[in-house]
Parts: sequence; C-alpha cells; structure tokens
Amino acid sequence: MIKFIEESPLYRIANARSLVFFGASNNVSSMGTQLLMTVQAGDFKGAIYPVHLKEKRVLNLDAYRSVTDLPEVPDLAVIVLPTAVVNQTLEACGKKGIKQAVVVSGGFREMGEEGAILESVLKDIAAEYGMKILGPNCLGVANPHQKINTTFVPNEGDPGFVGLSSQSGSFVTQMFEYLSGFNLGFSTAFSVGNEAVLDIVDCMAYLGACPHTKVIALYIEGIRRGDDFMKVARAIVPHKPIVAFYVGGSKAGKAAGFSHTGAMAGPDELYDGMFRQAGIIRAASVEEMFDFCWALGSLPMTNGNRVVIQTHSGGPGAAAADACGRAGLELSALSDKTLQKLVPYIPATGSVGNPVDLTFAKDYSSFFYEIPAILLAEENADMLMVYILSPQRVVERILKGMGVENRKVPEEALEIMESNALQLSDFLKKQKKPVIGFTFHDYDSPILKETIRRGLPVFRGAEKAARAMAALTAYGRIRARENRRLADAAKTV
Amino acid sequence: MIKFIEESPLYRIANARSLVFFGASNNVSSMGTQLLMTVQAGDFKGAIYPVHLKEKRVLNLDAYRSVTDLPEVPDLAVIVLPTAVVNQTLEACGKKGIKQAVVVSGGFREMGEEGAILESVLKDIAAEYGMKILGPNCLGVANPHQKINTTFVPNEGDPGFVGLSSQSGSFVTQMFEYLSGFNLGFSTAFSVGNEAVLDIVDCMAYLGACPHTKVIALYIEGIRRGDDFMKVARAIVPHKPIVAFYVGGSKAGKAAGFSHTGAMAGPDELYDGMFRQAGIIRAASVEEMFDFCWALGSLPMTNGNRVVIQTHSGGPGAAAADACGRAGLELSALSDKTLQKLVPYIPATGSVGNPVDLTFAKDYSSFFYEIPAILLAEENADMLMVYILSPQRVVERILKGMGVENRKVPEEALEIMESNALQLSDFLKKQKKPVIGFTFHDYDSPILKETIRRGLPVFRGAEKAARAMAALTAYGRIRARENRRLADAAKTV
Repeated sequence: MIKFIEESPLYRIANARSLVFFGASNNVSSMGTQLLMTVQAGDFKGAIYPVHLKEKRVLNLDAYRSVTDLPEVPDLAVIVLPTAVVNQTLEACGKKGIKQAVVVSGGFREMGEEGAILESVLKDIAAEYGMKILGPNCLGVANPHQKINTTFVPNEGDPGFVGLSSQSGSFVTQMFEYLSGFNLGFSTAFSVGNEAVLDIVDCMAYLGACPHTKVIALYIEGIRRGDDFMKVARAIVPHKPIVAFYVGGSKAGKAAGFSHTGAMAGPDELYDGMFRQAGIIRAASVEEMFDFCWALGSLPMTNGNRVVIQTHSGGPGAAAADACGRAGLELSALSDKTLQKLVPYIPATGSVGNPVDLTFAKDYSSFFYEIPAILLAEENADMLMVYILSPQRVVERILKGMGVENRKVPEEALEIMESNALQLSDFLKKQKKPVIGFTFHDYDSPILKETIRRGLPVFRGAEKAARAMAALTAYGRIRARENRRLADAAKTV
Repeated sequence: MIKFIEESPLYRIANARSLVFFGASNNVSSMGTQLLMTVQAGDFKGAIYPVHLKEKRVLNLDAYRSVTDLPEVPDLAVIVLPTAVVNQTLEACGKKGIKQAVVVSGGFREMGEEGAILESVLKDIAAEYGMKILGPNCLGVANPHQKINTTFVPNEGDPGFVGLSSQSGSFVTQMFEYLSGFNLGFSTAFSVGNEAVLDIVDCMAYLGACPHTKVIALYIEGIRRGDDFMKVARAIVPHKPIVAFYVGGSKAGKAAGFSHTGAMAGPDELYDGMFRQAGIIRAASVEEMFDFCWALGSLPMTNGNRVVIQTHSGGPGAAAADACGRAGLELSALSDKTLQKLVPYIPATGSVGNPVDLTFAKDYSSFFYEIPAILLAEENADMLMVYILSPQRVVERILKGMGVENRKVPEEALEIMESNALQLSDFLKKQKKPVIGFTFHDYDSPILKETIRRGLPVFRGAEKAARAMAALTAYGRIRARENRRLADAAKTV
C-alpha cells in the first residue's frame, strides 16, 4: 500500500513527461503507427522520440535509428514490435537508462511454452535494469488528466473520477465512449496484459493514492498475488470504494481468460469470499461495474437500505419496488408527518404509500421540488429513487394547444424541460441523502441529458438503479465495518 | 382460446372504425383533451364524435350534446370523465347500442370500498348491455397497424411485431420511444387497468390470434383467472412465444409485503411454477422482457444451447463466455474441420478456441463474412454470438493517413462502416441459426444503427445477449415439448 502516487512504480508510466516509441512508421494501417497517432491526437505535451531503422521522420516527428541516439533519457518506452525483437529492445532501453516501459506486443506466455520462455527473459531484463514494465500483451495506460493515452483508441471524453485496472485492453478502449454517454470518464485506466512485472495489484494501489480517482474498477480474469491483493484492497476500502467484475468463475469464462492473458482463474466461490473479505463490491457484468462506479463516485454515502420511491405512474413504481426487494433493499414506512405533508400534492387517484405515486392529475412541477423535499426529510428513508419521465411530445402538444406558434414549440418545450431538469438536479445535488433516477428514455432526450450532465445518476430501468443503490449501501456498511476494525486495531496497539 | 382475432371481444376495440369521445374539450391541459389529441395525431381514419355539454366544436370536430344525438352507433366509446359520471355514461352508451368501451377514468376498485361498489355497478351495466369494456383506470389500446391509439401519448414509432398486454399503462406509453430505439414496435398494446370486464387473459388470447404479433409480452401485477390464464397460454405457446415480467400482487399489498420483508416469496414461487408449466418465459425486468421479445421475434428458432463466440478482443470474449455460462448456455467445442478452416483468418496472436478471437492483426473485413460463415457451418454450434465494434475514430484516422481530404473523412468512414454493417446483417439474416450481436456502443453509432435497422438484434453488453440467447433456447425446448404433448394427445384420441 502506498500513500502518495509518486511512490508507485506506475507513477512515471501514467505521468510520463517524454516517450520513446518503437514500432511506429508512416504506414498508417500498422498497429504501432495507430498507437503513436493516438498519443499525438491526445495532445501529449512532452517530447516523443520515434525509433525507426530507415525513416528520418515518422508522423511528422524526427525519428532516431536507435535508442542510443536519443538526446535525453525519456521517462517511458512504448514498444509495439514483433515479439522476437521485444527483449533486445528492452535491453537497449535498460542500457540507455530508461526505467519505464509499456510492452504492447503479444506473443508471450498467452501463446504457450515458447512465449513463456520469452516472458521470463523479459522479467530478467526488467530485474537487471530495474525497469517497471506494463505488459506484455497490453494497451498500457490512459490518463486524460495528463493527456497521455497509449491505447491506440482516441479518448474523446472528459477526464473523470473512475480509475480502472483491467486485465483486458478492450475494457479500457471500449469504455471511453461508453462512459462519456453517462457523463463519466476515467481518472486513469490501466490495461495490465500478462502482468510480467507490474500487475493489477500495483495499478489498484496507484489508483488508491490517485487524487483524481474517486472509485476503483477492476476487470479480473485471475489474481496472481492473492495476499497482496487482499492487503492493498483492505487498505484502500476504508477511504475509497472498489468494484470488481470477475469472469473466471464459470468454466467457460475461465478457459476464455486463459487464452486471453494466460491468467489462472479460481473457483467463483473463492473469489467471492476474497472480495467479501476485502470489502470489494462485486458486479455481475462490465456494465454493472460502471453503474456501481457511477453511483459510488457521485452520491453521498449511506449505510442504510431504506428506500422511498417517487413516481407518477403505477407500473414503474411497482417495478421499482420489486427491483428494490430483489436487490435486498427495503421500502421505507412513511411516517405520519410525511404522509400529512404529502396530502396537498397527491391527487385522489394517486397513492401516498411507498411508492409515492403522483399520477398525472396535480401540478407537474411539484415533482421537481416539493415532493422530493418532503421525501428526503423522512427519517425512515435513507435514499430516494425517482422515476424520470421526459414527456416531450405531451409538453409540445400542450404548448401548441395554448396557441404557441408551431415553429417555436419544440424550442419552448425544450426550455421548460431543461429548466425542470435544472431545478431537480440542482436541488438533489445539495442533499445529504443519495438520490438516484430511473427512466426508460434514451440518454439523448433533453431532460436526461441535462440531469446527467449535472451529475445525477439516472439508470435505464428500475433494476439497474436498485442494484446501484444496493451497492451504495453495501459500501457504506463495509466502510463502517473497516473503520471500526481500524479503530479497534489502533486501540489494542 | 380463439383462432381468429375477429372472434375476440377486443376485436372492435383494437380495430374500432368509429369513436365516441367523452371528456375531451378545448382545454388542452385536461387529460381527456390530451387523449383525443393523441387519437387525432395518430391519424385515425374513422369518424370521431366528441360529446360535450356546451361546446359546439371540440378540437375542430363537431361535438354532440349527448350520445343519443350521434348520427350512427360508433364501434367504441372512450371515456375520460370524473368517476361519478362514468356509469351513467356507460348506460347511455349501452342504450344507444354501443358494444365496446375503453374507460380511462380511475377512482374505482383501486381506491377502496366505495370505488369497488362503483366498479360492480359498471360490471352490471356491461352485462346488461353486452358491452365489452377495457378498464376502468386504464389507457386502452394502441394498434399502430390500424392507426388507433387511446393512450394519450403519441406513438411515433413504426408498427412492429411485439404484442403487449399490460397491467400498467406506463409500460405501454413509455415503451413507444423505448422500442423505437431497437427498431422495434408494437403490433398491438393493451393497458388493462382494473380488468372489471376484459382482462389480461382476453388480451393475451387476442394477441395469440393477431397476425401482426410474433411474440407476446405480459406485464403482470397479479392474475385473477389462473385456470384460464394457463389454458390460453398453453394454447398459444406451441406457435408463438410468450414472455412475462411479474412484479407481485396488488400494488398496495406488494409495497406492504416488501416493507415486511420477504412476504412476496411464496406467491413469487407460485407464479414461477405457473409460468414454467404454461411454457411462458419469465423476464427479470421490463427491459429484459423486451430484450427477449427482440430475440424471439426476429431470430430463427433453436432448441440447442451450444454457442460459438466471435470477437476481436479478449476481454469482451471472456465476458461473453462467462455470461453464457451464467445463463446456462454451453460453449461449442469446435470440430477439427472448423479449426482448419479458421487458420488462414486468425493471426498468431489470436485464438482459434471458442471464443474465436481474431485480435486486430488480420484483414478486418473477414470479420463480416468469412469467419461467421465458417462458425455457422460448425455442427457443434447452435448459435453465434458476435462482438460488434464500431471503430469510427480508427477508420477515420486510417483514411486521413491514406491522404483522404479531411472534410471527406467522416463521410467515407461512415460509408465503409455502413457497407460492413450491410454485408454482415444481410449475410446473417439469411442464416438458419440464430445470430446475436453484443456491443458497448451507443445505438446511434452508424454501424449499429444500420445493423439494427436490418433486423439483427445487438445488445449492450454480453450479459443481455447471453440471457436473450438462453430465452431463445428455452422457447425452442418449450415448443418442442408442447408439440410432443399435442401429438401424443392427438394419438390417444
């Protein structure tokens, strides 16, 4: 466990100030060239030195025949070469004094015995020169806060608070766009590949100390250093949540993981127990891992599990209640005080039970302020779950009926809904209890776009929202438990 | 069970040729007016007769003081009036000879004892005049094939193949836009409300006989006619799949049940058994219900559960394998013949196991034709699951590097990807084995938009895709079982 990221062996990888690049050329269809283009597209601020046997210029940069020719010792070597020449290149880097490398090239342990021998040579070179190596068979690192991205896919999203340590490179690159859709982004994401030198535990420790990282996501096919994994996780969890998706549990997942990175998976129960003991929240899919990160990184903490549901129609309310039940949450019993306060806002056809169902009869705007304020004041409720409807066509029709000019209708409808979204999200963000939305709308509907942009998590479907709330409660309880444990340990010293 | 929809009591509701409308005015913020505006916006072809005490014209239609004044006996009465006057209006309709009604008004059994008395009067009126009534407390019907929509939300999507019978009106209206996003739409959707006269079983029977309906979705809060439900479902299932999402008993009872923790466990098992016996596929959420409908309505049938996975990166492949394992599917053991055929297409860094992992090294285009063709010919595989990546930025960069003018790059990249999508989906649609895609892209990415538009189901995340494939297998097996049962029964006669 480390306290400051500067202590991490990954620090000068994720925060490299200069790069030497092996494997890029002017042939744009090669992987190495693609990768260097990504680094450039990412607006990397430091010096980049392509090494090329023949070309004088590579992608408009001065190229060097050999690493020995470089005018300085760069922080990081990025290697995208044929397997056979990787080790000799690393050795040359070591001799030059380069202390960090990302080895993108595959063909090592994941390819059988011969590759395993090459990988053990790679490790020897790392040991000899004190080199910190990410890979081989990885995509390296994306740290948008430092504008460094070695993953060969441009990251067009904003920097964010999700730290990722992944045994799959795709779950770095494929998630740039995916997270953007939720107004989320990576603080730093690592693709660890075969973990010959640095592994998922080192990356987790880095993210634990990274000030941009509010929540850590782990994509796991197999853990090699079990004890260290537990130790590092337990040290992080009292101050930062960790969410893991583990695929090696099923027979099929295990076999697939092995051919991917050569990771040895263990029985599902073993990992489940490990996660539980370490206080790591387990997700059932990649999507769910990021759902949980969204809630954990953007909402206030709670260790209660009593939910109050606000809806304006019965079906979504019932589906939400059902989803809460299945996720292990309870519906709050509303106090008489709350029921009294609600009466003026709920029409005769609505329901003042929980779910609180407004139906459509009363003032639409109370949905965005008065009602949630009453529900958040309920002492029996730890969390609020709100059904979010974006009745664009209905609002447009009302405006038309009110005599608004046809050509102005869409714009005015948009304004009304955006102002509602603004009111709701600004109000909810100030609350000390977590509030989560659910909807069946696309994220590009205007009300949702605004709501999400302002930091309120809104999930598609009640089930996802309920499971994210359960993750929130689980983390609140883990944190309380771990802090008690630490306090007890301090006392006995 | 009925064979032709014309026999259904719902026929002249879902296919009404003329409407009388109670509760619409020129006040556009009233629910009744909203509803009539929806009917008009839906381009309903028949006559519409608004009944209004004072107005001569309502929404540009001639209005009538009373139902007795109408120039003809319309097929359907739509009633959006205060609870207190609903029954007398129904009686007047009965006297006029109107045989069908949708009662949108609430305030009946769902509001307690007094409402229950009103509802029993409503039933008496229905019996006396032989009226078929949907509701009260419902949104009626949306049949886009006949351009009839009484749900007060305009349906802007295309007609489709999903039939819905729902105990929540929101799960009709909220799903118009939701289904559009998957290029799906309703054949006909019913909101059944309190089911005073016609119920979810009648609607299911209608949809069973409806030629536009390929798959039936049921949103269930509680079944009243258990035996009939079973009988009708068993008659439909041998020729049309049924998917159900069940949330529990009455809304109030359900909420109470949940706050007392676990009170729903018994009934849930009962419904589970009922569904299993009837051959109904159970979904865990509304979203999953429509996921299953998508797969069941658009893919060829199978009763095998052996999946082959095609990917070009390891993580998504491993996640897919894991998701298949959890969903009860098996990964096909590829035959030597298939492995031999794959060799030329898979690079050294790829994997010819299952998942078949192409990585990025070889010809990108083989992903869209040659490889799936080989995998679909594999005799040990019943289904194919394909990871779909839309590398827009990467393709754009390659084009730029090839010297394509900057302003032409996005367009050309789009063309390339659309042509890939076209090739893939056209090829896959011709196959006799089901093929399902999974991705992490937004549905508005060009390659996905085209693929989905051409009818290939593509799910966000491996888990949803695997569960949809498992639903496909489950239905294939149910259908085989039910057909055996029917054949045996025929023999013994």
